[in-house]
Amino acid sequence: MNSYIFGVDIGGTTVKLGLFSGEGLLLEKWEIPTNTQDHGTHILPDVARSISDKMAQKGISTQQVAGIGLDFPGPVTAQGVVTHCDNLGLGRLDVKEAMARLLPGISNIAVENDANAAALGELRQGGGKGYNSAVMFTLGTGVGGGVVLDGSIFSGTNGAAGEVGHLTVELNETVPCGCGKCGCLEQYASANGIVRLAKRMLAQCDTPSRLREIDSFSAKDICDLAREGEEMASTILDRCGKYLGLAMSYVSCTVDPQVYIVGGGMSRAGTILTDAITKHYRKYAYHPSTQTPVVLAELGNDAGIYGCAGMILSK
Amino acid sequence: MNSYIFGVDIGGTTVKLGLFSGEGLLLEKWEIPTNTQDHGTHILPDVARSISDKMAQKGISTQQVAGIGLDFPGPVTAQGVVTHCDNLGLGRLDVKEAMARLLPGISNIAVENDANAAALGELRQGGGKGYNSAVMFTLGTGVGGGVVLDGSIFSGTNGAAGEVGHLTVELNETVPCGCGKCGCLEQYASANGIVRLAKRMLAQCDTPSRLREIDSFSAKDICDLAREGEEMASTILDRCGKYLGLAMSYVSCTVDPQVYIVGGGMSRAGTILTDAITKHYRKYAYHPSTQTPVVLAELGNDAGIYGCAGMILSK
Repeated sequence: MNSYIFGVDIGGTTVKLGLFSGEGLLLEKWEIPTNTQDHGTHILPDVARSISDKMAQKGISTQQVAGIGLDFPGPVTAQGVVTHCDNLGLGRLDVKEAMARLLPGISNIAVENDANAAALGELRQGGGKGYNSAVMFTLGTGVGGGVVLDGSIFSGTNGAAGEVGHLTVELNETVPCGCGKCGCLEQYASANGIVRLAKRMLAQCDTPSRLREIDSFSAKDICDLAREGEEMASTILDRCGKYLGLAMSYVSCTVDPQVYIVGGGMSRAGTILTDAITKHYRKYAYHPSTQTPVVLAELGNDAGIYGCAGMILSK
Repeated sequence: MNSYIFGVDIGGTTVKLGLFSGEGLLLEKWEIPTNTQDHGTHILPDVARSISDKMAQKGISTQQVAGIGLDFPGPVTAQGVVTHCDNLGLGRLDVKEAMARLLPGISNIAVENDANAAALGELRQGGGKGYNSAVMFTLGTGVGGGVVLDGSIFSGTNGAAGEVGHLTVELNETVPCGCGKCGCLEQYASANGIVRLAKRMLAQCDTPSRLREIDSFSAKDICDLAREGEEMASTILDRCGKYLGLAMSYVSCTVDPQVYIVGGGMSRAGTILTDAITKHYRKYAYHPSTQTPVVLAELGNDAGIYGCAGMILSK
């Protein structure tokens, strides 16, 4: 009798679902809209219905479901309770209890934060394939991250393990980060952060740059120009790489992972970014760890569902 | 039939040994000199003889020995191989294989780096008792450390997990650390480091201090004067606390432990030091982790043998 796993990546706009074989092979993926109305109370019933429908369509019995992994864009306790999830409208939600009620007979439910799930997905099937421990840096609107040690997500005492976006990398910063502190990595290495960094660097010099001609340039503009070889854009990306390399050196002196995985929108800059990070990382890292590779994420938006399935597999 | 565990903490001058009950209670402790002659080849035979003698004296059979944990002042691989240990004169040594040969019938041998073992000892029986995850900062001649997650030592890919002394905490430093990098925590928070920091701070101001009257002051002098309330000594200790608090904030964004344990000679400064660390830690830590306690180590020189016994207990 074949067994199956469902991976469910719950985002602010859509829920991504994946049906996996019991060995972790992705068989099918689909999406449903995230209904955030009524304090997010429709989300899990919608997910359960979508899973039931897929099971009926494929002739999968509850006995054949090895488990369901779900991730949320917010803090999740070790007991699988979402404490709050602002962009879903959710307050406290005992996901394990709710899912067991909605899908009787399926008791193996795993729940995680989305950044942690993505890190596990990339380790198992993406940029970190073949490794057993990794720390992922997700460079999106903000900077998130996840820590995977010995093949399992490590989320820490307060769920703050892997919150690499809030490593203090600049002691001279005077403008506060969204978190209230000053000098967080997120202030320089997120899509918004690098734009802010670029504006500041452009204002402090006269180096010519096509960025000066764009009314409201984006992280993509900086990365594109750096790839084309523009000096100023390259200098900006190098500075961003310096902060990322410094942050990774902090992580290495703590858990010394096998690999760093860089994902999120900013990672579309490609090897020009990982090369800049690696250059600075090697300078700041303690000598036993200087050769730790920095690789690009490979799964894009599928990292979450892979990671959610991985939580069931690594249990 | 009672079972027993031996904990063996191998230092450059003496080997500390402990006989523990199978439940981890210390029954007896003693020391033998470390014979570093002939490339350290006498060390393990001396340890084995001391254990055999104790077993004969107490009437303990090999079947009653649940295991032997040993620690070394140098890097140890996950397979229990010491790669090199300069202050013991040792090159590569397969400790598990050697001990199994020296003490036939006792196959449960665990080997670790001394800083990691001390961290586990403090977690199980010392300052971190009652917690399950901790990161220890050992402030001695240098700054070492150890990471304990879910009750077990985490040593990392290259054995560099917990090398908190080489976290870069000062980007403006121009003098290199012993490791070759600039701005390592060890340059400010070790016994040598705080003296160097103090000399630099004294040279940059005219604030009166009794330190100016001591020819060659020590870390102890700084801590003693700070405890007496001297302004300049307090400012120096506060600066040291700032670097330590910053370093702990890096660790929290990576593994978010339950507690920080501060040990080593410098920790004799007491709560004046942990208070200074806590003040700065809370400023740099990401908000979910700001309340993580910073406690003093309690076991002193016994931390190693407790940790070595703990490695057998947590297996």
